[in-house]
Amino acid sequence: MIENKGILFVLSGPSGVGKGTVRKEIFNRKNDLKYSISATTRGMRQGEKNGIDYFFKSKDEFQTLIEENKLLEYAKYVDNYYGTPRDYVEEMLAKGHDVFLEIEVQGALQVKKNFPDGVFIFLLPPSLEELKNRIVSRGTETNELVRNRLSEAKKEIRMMDNYDYAVLNDDVNRAVENVQSIIASEHLKRERVEKEYRKILEVELP
Amino acid sequence: MIENKGILFVLSGPSGVGKGTVRKEIFNRKNDLKYSISATTRGMRQGEKNGIDYFFKSKDEFQTLIEENKLLEYAKYVDNYYGTPRDYVEEMLAKGHDVFLEIEVQGALQVKKNFPDGVFIFLLPPSLEELKNRIVSRGTETNELVRNRLSEAKKEIRMMDNYDYAVLNDDVNRAVENVQSIIASEHLKRERVEKEYRKILEVELP
Repeated sequence: MIENKGILFVLSGPSGVGKGTVRKEIFNRKNDLKYSISATTRGMRQGEKNGIDYFFKSKDEFQTLIEENKLLEYAKYVDNYYGTPRDYVEEMLAKGHDVFLEIEVQGALQVKKNFPDGVFIFLLPPSLEELKNRIVSRGTETNELVRNRLSEAKKEIRMMDNYDYAVLNDDVNRAVENVQSIIASEHLKRERVEKEYRKILEVELP
Repeated sequence: MIENKGILFVLSGPSGVGKGTVRKEIFNRKNDLKYSISATTRGMRQGEKNGIDYFFKSKDEFQTLIEENKLLEYAKYVDNYYGTPRDYVEEMLAKGHDVFLEIEVQGALQVKKNFPDGVFIFLLPPSLEELKNRIVSRGTETNELVRNRLSEAKKEIRMMDNYDYAVLNDDVNRAVENVQSIIASEHLKRERVEKEYRKILEVELP
């Protein structure tokens, strides 16, 4: 049953594929989306801000969020936790706003259990080779971490079965436009709009 | 099962809703679609050209197409027949091209039986009042025909259950952009692209 409420869009994909870049560019452009900021225990990278890019938490703080059931999903990825604060998402959807999540693959699968009507978009790298280059050039990871991340990436790409759409991130602008097309077209699905348009039929014939 | 072939897009909706205008504007813009021109027995209107807007046929000629099973669908609408030549559509899809049909509601339902994987888009008028104004202002119809068409329109709007998407034609540019978003997003559906992207996994880990 699709009610007159907002749509949850979930952008996910393997680590290093460019989810953050695509998400930022979507929010640089005109949109009606509410962005749900994730909580994480990973270290802050250069240029990142607490409460903007992530809510940066200690492991103890994160554990408390889990215990108080304040996370819609959480996952341990390599050595860090990532999670989505639950209240904001549920409130915005209830008010009729679309909510946009950019999260790791494991987390997206948990969100799907809570929101089966959500729209799940998988961002794909042009190739594993390209993904490796991106992770290495970021310069924040050791060799072992690079290998771990690529191995994870392979597993994660196998999980795309659970997604509604797959968008190739060979070009950021093209990827952004494709995500925007998905957002627009989801609002045009007949079952979402039917109730509203049935009002047309209430008009009497001349 | 979705194979590596083109997608059939079907734009339909009540008579007078502006299907032709939207379709023409889509084809004025850059696109990779093949347009399937319909055959009809209705009279040619001012500005229309045979083989461009429709294949204009006599009733006898149309009957022959039906008997030789050369039509993918056909329908009698008010006093005229409309139909879609079958060969062109099937050939283009097999070659991997998208095909775009702009047809009446009854015809679209027949096409759906032959192509359940097609993408069916219902174009809606802002209101029945507006639809009436458009039909009257076209100046080609008698009062009785206007009433018939509106009565048909009500029946047709009830048929939107059979469609995948509903697009409001309150503004031609917006309607065109929405149809373009649907076309783009249908190409991004995970089940359509999965096979291709699985190739990524064939790369060896470093």
